[in-house]
Order: sequence, then structure tokens, then C-alpha cells
Amino acid sequence: MNLLESWHFFSYDLGSLNVDEYLECDVKPVRLAILGLGTVGGGALKLLKENAAEIKRRTGREIEITHVGTRRPRPDLDLPASVKQSSDLMDIVRQPDVDVVVEVMGGIHPAYEVIQEAIKHGKQVVTANKALLAEYGNELFKLADDHHVQIAYEAAVAGGIPIIKVMREGLAANKIDWLAGIINGTGNFILTEMREKGRAFADVLKEAQELGYAEADPTFDVEGIDAAHKLTLLASIAFGIPLQFDKVFTEGISKITAQDVKYAEDLGFRIKHLGIARRAETGIELRVHPTLIPEDQLIANVNGVKNAVLVQANAVGPTLYYGAGAGAGPTASAVVADVVDIVRDISYTEDGAGTIPQLAFEALTDLPILPREEMTTGYYIRINAEDQTGVLADVTTILSRAGISIDAIMQQPRLKDLIPIVILTDPVKESKMDEALQQIQALPVIHGEIVRIRLESLDN
Amino acid sequence: MNLLESWHFFSYDLGSLNVDEYLECDVKPVRLAILGLGTVGGGALKLLKENAAEIKRRTGREIEITHVGTRRPRPDLDLPASVKQSSDLMDIVRQPDVDVVVEVMGGIHPAYEVIQEAIKHGKQVVTANKALLAEYGNELFKLADDHHVQIAYEAAVAGGIPIIKVMREGLAANKIDWLAGIINGTGNFILTEMREKGRAFADVLKEAQELGYAEADPTFDVEGIDAAHKLTLLASIAFGIPLQFDKVFTEGISKITAQDVKYAEDLGFRIKHLGIARRAETGIELRVHPTLIPEDQLIANVNGVKNAVLVQANAVGPTLYYGAGAGAGPTASAVVADVVDIVRDISYTEDGAGTIPQLAFEALTDLPILPREEMTTGYYIRINAEDQTGVLADVTTILSRAGISIDAIMQQPRLKDLIPIVILTDPVKESKMDEALQQIQALPVIHGEIVRIRLESLDN
Repeated sequence: MNLLESWHFFSYDLGSLNVDEYLECDVKPVRLAILGLGTVGGGALKLLKENAAEIKRRTGREIEITHVGTRRPRPDLDLPASVKQSSDLMDIVRQPDVDVVVEVMGGIHPAYEVIQEAIKHGKQVVTANKALLAEYGNELFKLADDHHVQIAYEAAVAGGIPIIKVMREGLAANKIDWLAGIINGTGNFILTEMREKGRAFADVLKEAQELGYAEADPTFDVEGIDAAHKLTLLASIAFGIPLQFDKVFTEGISKITAQDVKYAEDLGFRIKHLGIARRAETGIELRVHPTLIPEDQLIANVNGVKNAVLVQANAVGPTLYYGAGAGAGPTASAVVADVVDIVRDISYTEDGAGTIPQLAFEALTDLPILPREEMTTGYYIRINAEDQTGVLADVTTILSRAGISIDAIMQQPRLKDLIPIVILTDPVKESKMDEALQQIQALPVIHGEIVRIRLESLDN
Repeated sequence: MNLLESWHFFSYDLGSLNVDEYLECDVKPVRLAILGLGTVGGGALKLLKENAAEIKRRTGREIEITHVGTRRPRPDLDLPASVKQSSDLMDIVRQPDVDVVVEVMGGIHPAYEVIQEAIKHGKQVVTANKALLAEYGNELFKLADDHHVQIAYEAAVAGGIPIIKVMREGLAANKIDWLAGIINGTGNFILTEMREKGRAFADVLKEAQELGYAEADPTFDVEGIDAAHKLTLLASIAFGIPLQFDKVFTEGISKITAQDVKYAEDLGFRIKHLGIARRAETGIELRVHPTLIPEDQLIANVNGVKNAVLVQANAVGPTLYYGAGAGAGPTASAVVADVVDIVRDISYTEDGAGTIPQLAFEALTDLPILPREEMTTGYYIRINAEDQTGVLADVTTILSRAGISIDAIMQQPRLKDLIPIVILTDPVKESKMDEALQQIQALPVIHGEIVRIRLESLDN
């Protein structure tokens, strides 16, 4: 037993001051309040206990949970008697025996109000709440700056992958060109099953719900809202721009058919639901949509519920970060990594607010976010045409007149009296594609609605 | 123009104090000495110039190069006249107008002595020198701790991939179980070419040398010494153990044949030159060797000169980090990221030494490093046998008696009058395999030396 341990062993309370505090300020534990005891909160508690020795070896300090915020007491968690359980969250975040508030309840309210109160009381904050930060982050980060505390949010994006740290610090020498991420595990599970087993969207969604991957209301996942929240955060720290969730163009995967998944594969592509943030000449593109990507790209081979983020930066080139995007263990890994950072910051910086700007940049710029019509992407187009001479000529002439280059064209075997024609195009401004497709749609030989899925080569 | 910029615009020297310094300590530039103007040093200079505005947005401070250490002056680099060029490195690191020494010369001497001198003069140090740190890091990190400065070394492992930051900080909540990395680009280029084109080792090595990927003396790369240097660093920050380069078991790729690459592929595996660090029951395994890995593992699809590190940790599970492991831009990305960290540390911590323990842990432990005989791996075994009844029975009986389970067995078509037999085994202690192979080798029907290549499923 070393001296540090023996001190702790014999420590006892002297009113508000304990012996550790009295003897040596460095051995004073950092005190946490954990708000929310769901999957993530439970996972964080378990991890802090299980890895306590390793974490103490890393930080040199004890981490002590002094409060948990929970609607009803949870005797099943077997917490030490010293941990105070309460449903009054506002009261918890005002307590003097709390250094760090870990908000893992989710939802906008009351998380927003509780975090504000915590900041005003000088607490460091850790949160996994992507919706809250994407929608109210600008206000919260400003409040935190004003009160010289930090809001750490590694768990808000891509679960256990330390992508926030990578972007804010690891790639700090770079100007980021673009990033593309599989940042919703449910959506990736569905698309993977559709491709590997030729199954239909609705069928796989039902299974995902039964497996607990998808919520009863799957809109957040499959319509891309969850991914748009995460993309909002990633874009802000990539380019140093304010959080602008309302400007993300978002398209879900619910209209993707097994047929298009198959055709894409025949052409050497996979369909992934990507969040893409790109620095274009006239502004920033923020978009979440199904995307054809070449099958030999590493990120095309990220399957099941796994997440990955591919970042293109001007010095390092492309780098990719892969891992579990959800679940108790991986999310707790990110939450507790933030706690470890804060423990180190409390030990070595004056205010514990750390050394990294909250949104990666000391000064944010107000680069314009491009409207969809101004974005540039390649396209997969599928049309169903009558089997008549001249159809291909008509279609390709319209594309050519709109200045759209065709990269590949594939006529599929007749299906229900119609010929499916698939066209891959080079990157083109969306407004041009809108116009061309309107004209093609108006051709009398074209039946049903044209299918358009964006395509990215991800190679520069 | 904001206030900060306007101050800077009107700044002028007042002897040793300029107006920035006088007005606001935060705008004082951080001053670098760059030692070595080869690929990495040149890349760092270029990057600091090219991304100066973005880096200043991130840090809020100017970075100024005050000295470069170079054997002969380099007018071609077009450095500002204010940058002092000298070949007297010891003199440079003693100068008062240097906050950070960036050592990118490579080689053990004089880098070792120069860094020691820099530390003694209170300079923060950034280095890309894996050989130096792997072999003399224990002494250097101790000296740095004693002088309250940091040695940052992101560029020493896997080039532009921020794997040091990920391991020291991003995964800090975890107990690391193992890691496996493709951490030498030259070796991966050679193995990729051998597989994709069926070429022989010597043939591809010659091309790699012509392309500039491999040195004239390729020993460091192909015999695994470079990878062992990097693995030494990764293992230390994964487990919190001292650097122990001399205990790494190292086997190169020069004996890998196109034949074995092909057989491995037939069985669903790829051969990669991996650095592996694993926490076993009785100690730590540190090993660099050619390894069969399942082709559906993401890391099996990391091709060409690219690097990747797969980390298995107890909370987050497997995560993977991929990118360029060498080259001017990627290595400079890591060097300058370290500089940015230090700029932030100088701005917000008392001594600029940062908040992270140099080797990730406040307290290192002396876990034993296992000798090769005590390591456990799966195996690919290829024997060439006469076409006689009973050979397979003899071989499998020997394996079975040694307690070695066979996972797959494949008899190949006759080659030069002999039958190649390939056997994949489950993980087994190396000493057991040594014994079994000695017995098999002694069978009169076996010709030539038995080929043994290790095999890892990388799935737990």
C-alpha cells in the first residue's frame, strides 16, 4: 500500500473538510452528480466502478459520485450509502459537493434548464445530449464561457469513437475540407441487412425495433434527424461555425428499396446513410441523405450498427475513425473519457475549464450554409421507361443540355412491362439536376416517379 | 477587423517587448525552433505557413518560428529574414526566444543530447523520433517530468493518425485489452502488391525502393524494427508500462512468399505485418510479425502505404483508426497538432506542460513482458509432404497430442512432386507449437522447412 492509498484508507470527515483535503489538495476526489440512470447513466456508473483502479492510475485522483438524479430511488443499483439519490435535479446541480454534472437524461427539457443552472453554479458539465446541443448549444456554450466552465460532449456523436477529440485536437493543424459519417447505427443496420439479405426496408425496421436498436417511433433514426443533430456538432468543430441544426438538409432512408440497393451493388457501390459536411467554394454544405459510395472505400464496409467518420483534411489527407456508435459501454466510455479530461483539467488548470475552445475554435466565423439547390453531388438516377426506341436518346439529351455528364448507364431487364434504366452522373449542382429531372419526368414514356439517390466518390 | 487583429496590425517593437506583449499577454506569439529541415521539417514549415490563419483561429495565438537548425542554410525555403538559421543545435535550444523545440531530424544522436539540453533549459519538446523514444524514452520522459515540461510525440506513431491522443485521452475510461496495428507503410505496400498482383517479395521491394517508400537499407521497415519502435510506444500508453523496446518479439516479412499469400486468401485470410500488444493472464505480449487475419475485418482491407490501428478496450469494444502513416503532410499534421496542444497548454496551464501524463498514466506498473514461448496465437502451418498414405494422420496426431486444435486443413495440388498441406490452428502457446513442429519436421516424409505464420481472428 503506498502513501496515497493509506491516506485515503484512513480518511474521515472533519465536518465539510476531510482529511485528504486537509493533507494534500491533489488527492481530493473529483465529485460527480450523474443525472439520469437509463442505459447511459447506468453504463457510466458501472464503468466508473469497474475501471476505478485503471482510471485512478491514469489521473492520480479519485472520482467520487456524490449525487444521482433519478425519478425514483434505484436500490437495485447497489450504490454506496454515501450517494444521495434525488429527483430534484435543480437542487442537485446547486450542491457544493458537486464538481462535475453528468447529464445523461436525454431530451431537451428539463436538460436545458438543469445544465444552465449547473453552469451558473460553476459546475463543469458532461453531456451525451446531441439534440440539446445541436438546437441550444450556441446559448449553452456561451453561458459556459461566461462562467469559465466547460461542456464536454464526446458521447454526443458516434458513441465510443473519440471523434470530438480527434476533430478538436488531433486534426488541429489542418483545414478540414469535408467529412462524411455513418453516425446512426440503426440506419446502418437496416441498410446492411437490406444489402446482405435482399430484404425490404419495412421488414428490417420491424426487426430492428424488436432487437431494441430502433425506437417505437423510428423517425429520429430513419428520417435522419438524429444524424442531423450529430452532423451539426461535427460541422461546427470542423469549420469553426456556429451550430445551425435548422440549416441541415435531411433526407431519410425509408424510401430506399431493395431493388436500388441491388442495382447500386451491381455497379460497384453501396448505399449508406451519410452525414456530410463540406467546405464548398461559396459556403458550407450540411446534408444527411442516403448516398452511393464505391464499395472499395473502407467506410463502405462499415456494417451493422457500427459507426464511422471519414475526414478529409488538407495536411493529413483522409483519415477514418470506426467503432460502436451506441450502447451502454461505448457511450459510457465517451462520457467517462470526458470526466477524465475534466479531472485532469481540474488538477492542472486554474478553473478546470480546460485548454480547448468548446467548439474547437477561439473565434467562430459565419460562413454561409448553402441551400440544397446550391449543393453539388453526383447522382444515381433510376427511371422506368416504356420499351420504345429513342428513350435513352431523349433522356441523355436532356442531361447533356443541362451540362450533366453521365458516368455510367445500365439498362436492366424488363420489370412489369417497363425497362428500368439506371444512370450515374458526375457531380452537378442540385438545381440543375432538379430541372433536368423535371423534364425527364415529363416525357410520356416515363412511368412512376424517378428515383434519385446522391452519389459521392469520397476520394478527394 | 476585430480588436485583436487591430492591435496586431499596429504592433511594433519596443526593444525586446513589443506592443502585443505589453497590451495583452495572450497575444504574445509562441516561439518555435525547428531542428531538421528534411521531409518532416519542411512539411511542418509549409503547413505552419499555409494553415496559419486557421491555426490562429483555433488557438487565438500566433506561432512564430524563431530558429531553424540545419546543417547548411536553405535559401530555397524562402524563410522570413527574422528566422535564424544555424547548425549549432545545442546553441539553438538554449536561446531565450524559444518556447518549443521541434525535433524532426531523426536518428538517436545527436537528437538525444539536444532534447536533453532543451528540456534542461525548460523548453517544451515535440518530436517525431520513434527510435529515440522507444530506446531512450524512459530517461527522457523522466527528465521532462523533473523539469516540468512535456515531450509530445504524436508524429512518432502512425504518422497523421492521432493515435497517441486517442489512446492517452480518448480511450482513457477503458482498460485496454489489446491493440493490433499496421504501423509500417512500406511493409503494407509490399504485402498489398504481393496479394493483388501475385508478385514476389523481392520484386515489390525493389519497386518500393524506386518509389521512395523504402530506404536503400530496407531492414528497418521489412524486418519490423520500425514497427517494433512504434509498438513499444503504443504498448506503454495502452497499459501504463515503461518503454521496453528490447523485449518486443520481432519477425519481418522478407520470408513471406506469394504462395502463402495465395493460400491464405483461399482460406479467407489476408497476411498483414502487425504490431500486437496484448494483456494476457500472466503478462504483456509485445510482438511484431506477419499475421493472417480474416478478410472481413476492416483492418484486413487497409491497403498500400496506409496505416491503421485496431484497439480492443473493455468499455468501448473495438475501435479502429485509419490514415496515412508517413509523408510530409501527414507527419507534419501530427507535429503541428502537438504544437497546437502546447500553445493551448502554454495559454491555460501554469507551466505549459499540459494536463496529460507523458505515458498516459500517472503511475506506471511493471507488468512482466512475456517471452515468445509464453505467447499465445493461432497458426497457419504449411508443410510439403511426399504423396504417401498416412501423412495427414501422422501430422494431425502430433498436433492432437500437443493439445493443438485444428481449425481448417487444406491439401493443395501437387507442386514439384510434393503435396503442400496447409493447416490453421486455434490459439496455442508458442512453446507447444515449437515442440509439435519439431516432431512434424522430423517425419521422413516432410521435405524442406515448415512454414509457420501466426494467425489472429481479432474478434475479441
